[in-house]
Amino acid sequence: MNISTDTRTPLTLLGTGAMGTALAHSWLGAGHPLAVWNRTPSRAQPLAAQGAELFASAADAVAASRLVVVCLLDDSTVGEALAGVDLRGKDLVNLTTGTPAQARSRAEWAQARGARFLDGGIMAVPPMIGAAGSGGYVFYSGSRTLFDTHQEVLAVPAGTLFVGADAGFAALHDVALLSAMTGMFAGVAHAFALLRKDNVPPREFAPLLAGWLTAMTPWVHKAADQLQDGDYTKDVVSNLAMQVAGSATLLRTAEEQQVSSELLVPYLALMERRLAGGHGEEDITGVIDLLARPSVA
Amino acid sequence: MNISTDTRTPLTLLGTGAMGTALAHSWLGAGHPLAVWNRTPSRAQPLAAQGAELFASAADAVAASRLVVVCLLDDSTVGEALAGVDLRGKDLVNLTTGTPAQARSRAEWAQARGARFLDGGIMAVPPMIGAAGSGGYVFYSGSRTLFDTHQEVLAVPAGTLFVGADAGFAALHDVALLSAMTGMFAGVAHAFALLRKDNVPPREFAPLLAGWLTAMTPWVHKAADQLQDGDYTKDVVSNLAMQVAGSATLLRTAEEQQVSSELLVPYLALMERRLAGGHGEEDITGVIDLLARPSVA
Ligand SMILES: NC(=O)c1ccc[n+]([C@@H]2O[C@H](COP(=O)([O-])OP(=O)(O)OC[C@H]3O[C@@H](n4cnc5c(N)ncnc54)[C@H](OP(=O)(O)O)[C@@H]3O)[C@@H](O)[C@H]2O)c1
Ligand SMILES: NC(=O)c1ccc[n+]([C@@H]2O[C@H](COP(=O)([O-])OP(=O)(O)OC[C@H]3O[C@@H](n4cnc5c(N)ncnc54)[C@H](OP(=O)(O)O)[C@@H]3O)[C@@H](O)[C@H]2O)c1
Repeated sequence: MNISTDTRTPLTLLGTGAMGTALAHSWLGAGHPLAVWNRTPSRAQPLAAQGAELFASAADAVAASRLVVVCLLDDSTVGEALAGVDLRGKDLVNLTTGTPAQARSRAEWAQARGARFLDGGIMAVPPMIGAAGSGGYVFYSGSRTLFDTHQEVLAVPAGTLFVGADAGFAALHDVALLSAMTGMFAGVAHAFALLRKDNVPPREFAPLLAGWLTAMTPWVHKAADQLQDGDYTKDVVSNLAMQVAGSATLLRTAEEQQVSSELLVPYLALMERRLAGGHGEEDITGVIDLLARPSVA
Repeated sequence: MNISTDTRTPLTLLGTGAMGTALAHSWLGAGHPLAVWNRTPSRAQPLAAQGAELFASAADAVAASRLVVVCLLDDSTVGEALAGVDLRGKDLVNLTTGTPAQARSRAEWAQARGARFLDGGIMAVPPMIGAAGSGGYVFYSGSRTLFDTHQEVLAVPAGTLFVGADAGFAALHDVALLSAMTGMFAGVAHAFALLRKDNVPPREFAPLLAGWLTAMTPWVHKAADQLQDGDYTKDVVSNLAMQVAGSATLLRTAEEQQVSSELLVPYLALMERRLAGGHGEEDITGVIDLLARPSVA
């Protein structure tokens, strides 16, 4: 079967770093005409052999297509690269990682320049891009119309998930997941560190650790129920009082194994504070309340 | 079919708190003659109706069976409850949570009193005990002979996993998994806290969070490979330099969302220290080296 590339939506990509290059490969592989710009042209050059049209300036690359995808280092880089570029009538999709507030002001900035704006948070690493079944996906927020219009194109590199008209929501979801992962990796680091003194082979321990974390993940759903219902005593299995009592064993073991407890202490301290507040019968969910910082405004 | 209980190994259980009671139910349900003692007799009383034989003293309960399982509050409670009790010829299985060093000295203590000793670390909550397919299991370490002799009895309440002749290894594995879980729950708490300001419904976010954590769990295997091979640059997808660059977005988002970053900062600080040590091309695995505390001895 001979599929004419004419039927595929053409698009422009600004930025061919590690992620941009992976995105470019997937769109080119799916037959989308692709206009490309990168600050350092040599880095985009290999894509020409695959059919990408290279542009010497961001302005020219933007002029080439209605749909413009940006994947640069950070938000200020996006502002620099697009300064003075004519965005009227463009559908601007920003896949550059940033904060919710950065996404919101970038959305206003784009709208003021006559563009529709969609922000994206990529939940994947480059090898997962364009790999069916990799589980990678992108959070999108902002213009629903833009999303609906281009969903097919956007779905080529990775799954798509629209999370709201508020342009900041994609970044919010993205950062929330990355933050949770950071905590998990910190716990994993502490666990591996504990085993060192006794030379437990990491590869033997790994399946136990991975299995345990997977088995404990469903607590997320219980916490969500408790938070949404505003009742932290709902379906509690191990209450806060028990967990705080258990903390001593964790800290003492760290000391025995000559491992710093710096990664555990902040959370254990919050559990203790919540317990001191008279919430011993609750689940550990109440520590979330203690993380709230009053607005300075 | 009429199964005679005579064929089932009789055993003694000291301690009928939440966990002890769950253990008792599973052994009684499987037809094991069970001798029981609890400091507060009323708490053990309901088990009599199911066929347990109640004893007024720990010494008498211990005398009733060769196999003695202890599930008390903590290690010092075990010492108190068994002070002066004749342990000669007993197979003592300690399912009380403690540190590796506590288990090791408890093993010496038991051996000096003429008992074989096995320590256990329960990776389950009471509702998972005796529930086939719950995924709960118990780490065991110490006397392999004791474990082999009684494995069938021990396997009644939960799966069994022997992790070494060193009596401290069950506790070490137990605490390592609990510590990793603590990190994961800290990350989850931070993630839920971030969503509050914008009223993202926790129940809508939960499947995304649980899915993401599950998808990231395989990093445990990669870290294990890197640790065991002593090469933290092996199969790196996102190197330390990139991850540290991303930290700013996590911290800035926390600030925007009026969430304290106290649960993230210690780990991010370790990543920065490792990067400053010239390890930007490594995976994040190197932070584990920074957790080692020199021996004071
Ligand atoms: N890689 C991942 O695993 C991953 C995962 C999820 C999200 N992301 C996000 O995707 C975005 C791109 O990441 P990446 O991995 O592709 O990074 P990268 O390989 O470091 O590429 C950075 C890109 O930004 C460009 N750039 C940097 N400073 C610039 C400036 N002042 N003006 C114009 N262009 C500039 C670079 O151009 P030069 O080639 O000229 O330097 C390059 O195209 C980031 O926001 C990142 O957070 C990445
Ligand atoms: N529950 C869980 O989710 C869980 C999970 C894994 C491991 N574990 C471990 O299992 C063990 C028991 O936990 P649990 O949940 O059953 O706790 P629990 O419900 O608080 O029961 C504590 C037990 O210890 C006894 N005890 C306390 N102080 C004593 C003393 N000075 N002298 C004699 N007996 C004393 C209590 O007797 P009284 O009835 O007289 O107070 C009771 O039998 C702990 O080491 C715990 O870490 C529990």
